[in-house]
Amino acid sequence: MRIAIVEGDGIGKEVIPEAVSILDYFNEKRGLGFEKVPVEVGLGKWEKTGEAISDADIALLNSCDAVLFGAITTVSAPSYKSVVLRIRKELDFFANVRPIHPIPGIEKCLDYGFLKPDTDIVIVRENTEGLYSGIEELGDERSTTLRVITKKASERIAAFASELASSRKNKLTIVHKSNVIKSDKLFLDTCKKTALDYFVEPNDLLVDAFSYDMLIHPEKYDVVVTTNLFGDILSDTGAVLLGSIGLAPSANIGDKKALFEPVHGSAPDIAGKGIANPMAAILSLKMMFEWLKMNKEAELIEKAVSISVSEKKVTPDLGGNLSTREVGKFILEQV
Amino acid sequence: MRIAIVEGDGIGKEVIPEAVSILDYFNEKRGLGFEKVPVEVGLGKWEKTGEAISDADIALLNSCDAVLFGAITTVSAPSYKSVVLRIRKELDFFANVRPIHPIPGIEKCLDYGFLKPDTDIVIVRENTEGLYSGIEELGDERSTTLRVITKKASERIAAFASELASSRKNKLTIVHKSNVIKSDKLFLDTCKKTALDYFVEPNDLLVDAFSYDMLIHPEKYDVVVTTNLFGDILSDTGAVLLGSIGLAPSANIGDKKALFEPVHGSAPDIAGKGIANPMAAILSLKMMFEWLKMNKEAELIEKAVSISVSEKKVTPDLGGNLSTREVGKFILEQV
Ligand SMILES: CC(C)[C@H](C(=O)O)[C@@H](O)C(=O)O
Ligand SMILES: CC(C)[C@H](C(=O)O)[C@@H](O)C(=O)O
Repeated sequence: MRIAIVEGDGIGKEVIPEAVSILDYFNEKRGLGFEKVPVEVGLGKWEKTGEAISDADIALLNSCDAVLFGAITTVSAPSYKSVVLRIRKELDFFANVRPIHPIPGIEKCLDYGFLKPDTDIVIVRENTEGLYSGIEELGDERSTTLRVITKKASERIAAFASELASSRKNKLTIVHKSNVIKSDKLFLDTCKKTALDYFVEPNDLLVDAFSYDMLIHPEKYDVVVTTNLFGDILSDTGAVLLGSIGLAPSANIGDKKALFEPVHGSAPDIAGKGIANPMAAILSLKMMFEWLKMNKEAELIEKAVSISVSEKKVTPDLGGNLSTREVGKFILEQV
Repeated sequence: MRIAIVEGDGIGKEVIPEAVSILDYFNEKRGLGFEKVPVEVGLGKWEKTGEAISDADIALLNSCDAVLFGAITTVSAPSYKSVVLRIRKELDFFANVRPIHPIPGIEKCLDYGFLKPDTDIVIVRENTEGLYSGIEELGDERSTTLRVITKKASERIAAFASELASSRKNKLTIVHKSNVIKSDKLFLDTCKKTALDYFVEPNDLLVDAFSYDMLIHPEKYDVVVTTNLFGDILSDTGAVLLGSIGLAPSANIGDKKALFEPVHGSAPDIAGKGIANPMAAILSLKMMFEWLKMNKEAELIEKAVSISVSEKKVTPDLGGNLSTREVGKFILEQV
């Protein structure tokens, strides 16, 4: 099993090592034989080589089974292409899975009205098309982007979400805007039909209404499937239900491989200060173990993070005064 | 001054009459000489005539100076075209203004973590293009919608937002997704330039990051300008900061005319029960008075609604047990 380690830029370089310590621990203790493959991509690489990610990097990532990914700083230079979008595309990570499940004990850190302990939502975001098609015509007077919905990609993501729903409460909420964006009719109808094929009960909401209702009544939702950009917005929005975006992990899943990354970015404003919350990276590692069906390891990690918040051993974003390193070390001691 | 009164469907028929009582009161008391012009459009009309809104209705609306608008039930029949989108387009209401400013006293009704009394955001939503272009190709295997950004429409909305910002804190936040959707570069650059022309200080955030940060740190934002669909999603999302979507008013502004409507829809689930919150409709009337530069009337309405929430004279969505009628009557007594 080869695991690519991509720290990336900014706080990616600070949080990924904490997740890697935990990976190392399990690797040694249980003799898992995981091989770590460091891959350097991102702004740092672009500054040195003029390329943020090369074909050789893609090939190297492709030779691995899973990727643990930090975050990338994007600059708006025309020659700078988004690293994570290129990886998602070339490695065909079609499903972006973003759980919204508050870590038990977080209420000890935050006196925070959004927190509802029974929130347990998984946003399944279509990761290959929609407004991320890249089909654009850019001009000085008029610029356009084509939003593309295909039956094939909609079926694929709906099947993935329905399978997940089967293993949970057998309910699937389809989020769309088909009252205005008629291309979403294809997404909606395809998802409904696919859900029924999987004996899953579909319901649906408009994206504006859902974004509101998810925050007011999170307990009403379980597995949610939506298009690319809506998933992007809703997963950041939903992170308020976690208490901090510093607690939001994600998985980008393909047929045989997967990439695990925190939802947060490289946060240039706090990079280098050693105060970034490593929990989203560590919980992304937890998702990797789940994906590998190593549920014991996954549980141990979740429990360790839970102890860390319950005892307020946390970084400043959660009201604590520990450093990234200290929090990482504390969590490692608990696993 | 001719004011079109469009109740529409569902709870539109229940909440608009309460706003109209207040309009009548000022009209008589101050001898304003406003003429009310009832216009019937929506699902009810479609069922009777096969048309949700006719050319004659558009002409009638066009003969008025302002529109007080309830809500419309949309059905997915192909012959059913969105009423509000047609009106926005044909009457050229290019700016959709959605304030997020909690009504003073709301904390008496709701014990609610999202409420932060110093929230005072105005979302200015471009109302004519973006993903609402209507340029679509629909197929069984692939459907597309063209997202259109023009310099002209971006300049117009940015000028409107900048003027508003000049009358407030001189700050404008531009919300976009130009890291992925390159057509948003045109929107972003045009807004930045226009803001500077108005001596307003622009800053910008990606839509996913903004949606999160608006909820966590609403006090950081003042006037926000964004594209059509992002404005749609963000204004519903931001309504959680108000305590209820039943408290969210909006204005659709054109060069000479404007339309005022609650952000909520026709809510078929509670229609006919007499429990809909009339406050969003009444606060939309308040926005009409502001637009007419009748600030005294606007203030009186806001104060009356504030007394109503402070004394818990409210509908069930705010934890009360009064009916739509009773709340409307109470507010009328306070103005
Ligand atoms: C960095 C950016 C391209 C990315 C996206 O828009 O998908 C990020 O926001 C995310 O959510 O993973
Ligand atoms: C009813 C619908 C067409 C409309 C929109 O999408 O603009 C509504 O959601 C709104 O926000 O006014």
